[in-house]
Amino acid sequence: MKILVLNCGSSSIKYALYNMDDKSVMTSGGAERVGLEGAFVKVKLPGGEKKQIMHDIPEHTEGVKFIFSLLTDPEIGVIKDLKEIDAVGHRMVHGGEKFNKSVLLTEEVLKTFEECSDLAPLHNPANLKGVRAVQELMPGLPQVGVFDTAFHQTMPDYAYMYAIPYELYEKYGIRRYGFHGTSHRYVSHRVCDFLGVKPEEQRIITCHIGNGGSVAAVKFGKCMDTSMGLTPLEGVMMGTRSGDIDGGAVSFIEKKLGLDADGISNLLNKKSGVYGITGISSDMREIEAAEKAGNPKAILAQNMYNYRIKKYIGAYAAAMGGVDIIVFTAGVGENQTGMRAGACEGLEWMGVKLDKEKNEKVRGEEAVISAPDSRVKVVVIPTDEELMIATDTMNLL
Amino acid sequence: MKILVLNCGSSSIKYALYNMDDKSVMTSGGAERVGLEGAFVKVKLPGGEKKQIMHDIPEHTEGVKFIFSLLTDPEIGVIKDLKEIDAVGHRMVHGGEKFNKSVLLTEEVLKTFEECSDLAPLHNPANLKGVRAVQELMPGLPQVGVFDTAFHQTMPDYAYMYAIPYELYEKYGIRRYGFHGTSHRYVSHRVCDFLGVKPEEQRIITCHIGNGGSVAAVKFGKCMDTSMGLTPLEGVMMGTRSGDIDGGAVSFIEKKLGLDADGISNLLNKKSGVYGITGISSDMREIEAAEKAGNPKAILAQNMYNYRIKKYIGAYAAAMGGVDIIVFTAGVGENQTGMRAGACEGLEWMGVKLDKEKNEKVRGEEAVISAPDSRVKVVVIPTDEELMIATDTMNLL
Repeated sequence: MKILVLNCGSSSIKYALYNMDDKSVMTSGGAERVGLEGAFVKVKLPGGEKKQIMHDIPEHTEGVKFIFSLLTDPEIGVIKDLKEIDAVGHRMVHGGEKFNKSVLLTEEVLKTFEECSDLAPLHNPANLKGVRAVQELMPGLPQVGVFDTAFHQTMPDYAYMYAIPYELYEKYGIRRYGFHGTSHRYVSHRVCDFLGVKPEEQRIITCHIGNGGSVAAVKFGKCMDTSMGLTPLEGVMMGTRSGDIDGGAVSFIEKKLGLDADGISNLLNKKSGVYGITGISSDMREIEAAEKAGNPKAILAQNMYNYRIKKYIGAYAAAMGGVDIIVFTAGVGENQTGMRAGACEGLEWMGVKLDKEKNEKVRGEEAVISAPDSRVKVVVIPTDEELMIATDTMNLL
Repeated sequence: MKILVLNCGSSSIKYALYNMDDKSVMTSGGAERVGLEGAFVKVKLPGGEKKQIMHDIPEHTEGVKFIFSLLTDPEIGVIKDLKEIDAVGHRMVHGGEKFNKSVLLTEEVLKTFEECSDLAPLHNPANLKGVRAVQELMPGLPQVGVFDTAFHQTMPDYAYMYAIPYELYEKYGIRRYGFHGTSHRYVSHRVCDFLGVKPEEQRIITCHIGNGGSVAAVKFGKCMDTSMGLTPLEGVMMGTRSGDIDGGAVSFIEKKLGLDADGISNLLNKKSGVYGITGISSDMREIEAAEKAGNPKAILAQNMYNYRIKKYIGAYAAAMGGVDIIVFTAGVGENQTGMRAGACEGLEWMGVKLDKEKNEKVRGEEAVISAPDSRVKVVVIPTDEELMIATDTMNLL
């Protein structure tokens, strides 16, 4: 069975074609600058070779059509006929309270999804465009929606409600939703397979730390809290996002700088975080290099970054009545050994004992990085949201 | 030695006269509606009797003058001559990064304090008015400033910095300051006296939970983190304040409701918290009653309230590398047994074991409420900010 995974953003379309017989990626790539001048598509071929192709992509249907043509291209394609594709799985961003799991995309479902657009006005319409493009090009092909928010729908009300007037929840759906759900779900299941334990017996803290980052408390297989909120701004410190900040500081900054709601949102989402503190970069690899060179702001940024993850680990252990496993995943979580060491430093009292040498060696591979006598297992699990989307899609057929 | 403690708000003046020989309160009270119609003064006499006196108070000097006249009043006064007062100690709200301890109020100090007004535009000028009033009425009388923020000045940079552009810290001083510092300092010292242990060996989490509330991590005698931030909005859920909220939700609400910075600040500070969720009251006693009557929103509010305190306990234990003592104080912390039980529920894994029967009985008195075999001591310590201010004032003379 062959399944195409699509992730349509407002100006990008990422894709991966899976052969689900052996769960291998046949080809993958992405269109960038969709709707803008200078659009192009990057393709990764089965042998690992990468190709960049300039191609005018005025809108999503044209982009999906061009990607389809690349899949069947005599030279760089991997299938002969589009009919070989059995289904398409879409990453959909905001399912609001409407979706707590992946679903077959019927017209009724799409209508419900559109109702959630208010909560993600940039992302949801782009996701929908991808679905419509496939409908137009391959009518009748089964399509599945996999939501970033779905895994977090099991949170109890006391974890997802904000302490604001209740009618703001009723009228506008303002509450914590959380994101990266597909990743938190994948790594929290995968780590149990890897360790040979049962998810329904484990209290797991999953740290998805990439350019964006979130931490989740997964108790006995279900998410009970997560650090991102109504929007992906809340929580840990990120590449360009502030993470947690005093709501009073938000209005203070607005007044000081004469910003409106869009202006402050832009500042907190795009000019803050690691980049805002250091002025150097939003990339933790560059921060780590600057830190080693003794740059005081890089040292500060790294300390803040680690400290905030550590506090979430403590908070979620308290929330779940303890913790059995801590997982690090995503770009920074899988590769930045200093972050993992910093976030776990001083947590011996709660049964966390890192194997420092082991931690230093593990990058981008599944591995236990805690010491053999650590009560809490600390594990690196590379995330694979695309595989999860392909698997959900297969299971729904 | 007799010391007068003054706490001047924008439209109120609270006072207490201490006899420091036995640390007793000779009389206390407060002027309300200063600068407004219908001003009055409430007086608590040494015998416990309370009196309310209507008196026009157009501004602070007149208020302080009237309070002085009450102190020496032949009928309800407690001293014969104002000269019996040795010094005045003031509660001052925001000392910014300028004050890390209490100080004698010289002209130079007052100038520096004025420079912090930008961070607390309502409170600091009112504090200053109180100082000027005393200067005018009793020239030469020593006055001492005790700052709400001072105790928190030992926080490391990675705990007090927000992940926003660094120049916002440099230009406007935007960072975490914390409040209730005098209370956190008092109870974190007092609990060590009470238990017969040394502050410099203890990791203490102090939960000051009143109508406003904050939690602090006090490691080996020094504050290393606290839940309130640049403003007293951040942190745990409060009577009418939201506490922690997604910065993205702040701008989302602004746009939805068409609010500007002042409008959203008003909503989050005055219409949120327990009151916002329940629509009933900001008073936890009324919420507890409604909860017992089965009101679902009261149940939700109580669960949110306790859960958020619990998460701070976990986060700060992680921050300090463990915890030895948890203190509950202030109106709710001293009296609402259900909150204490809820916040400590499920923390057995970290060595917290409440004595449920003991907890049920303790209200407004110093007492250990953890079980004898609890590794972490959980203690109720009634706060006494006024006594702390009087003590600091005496020590500086």
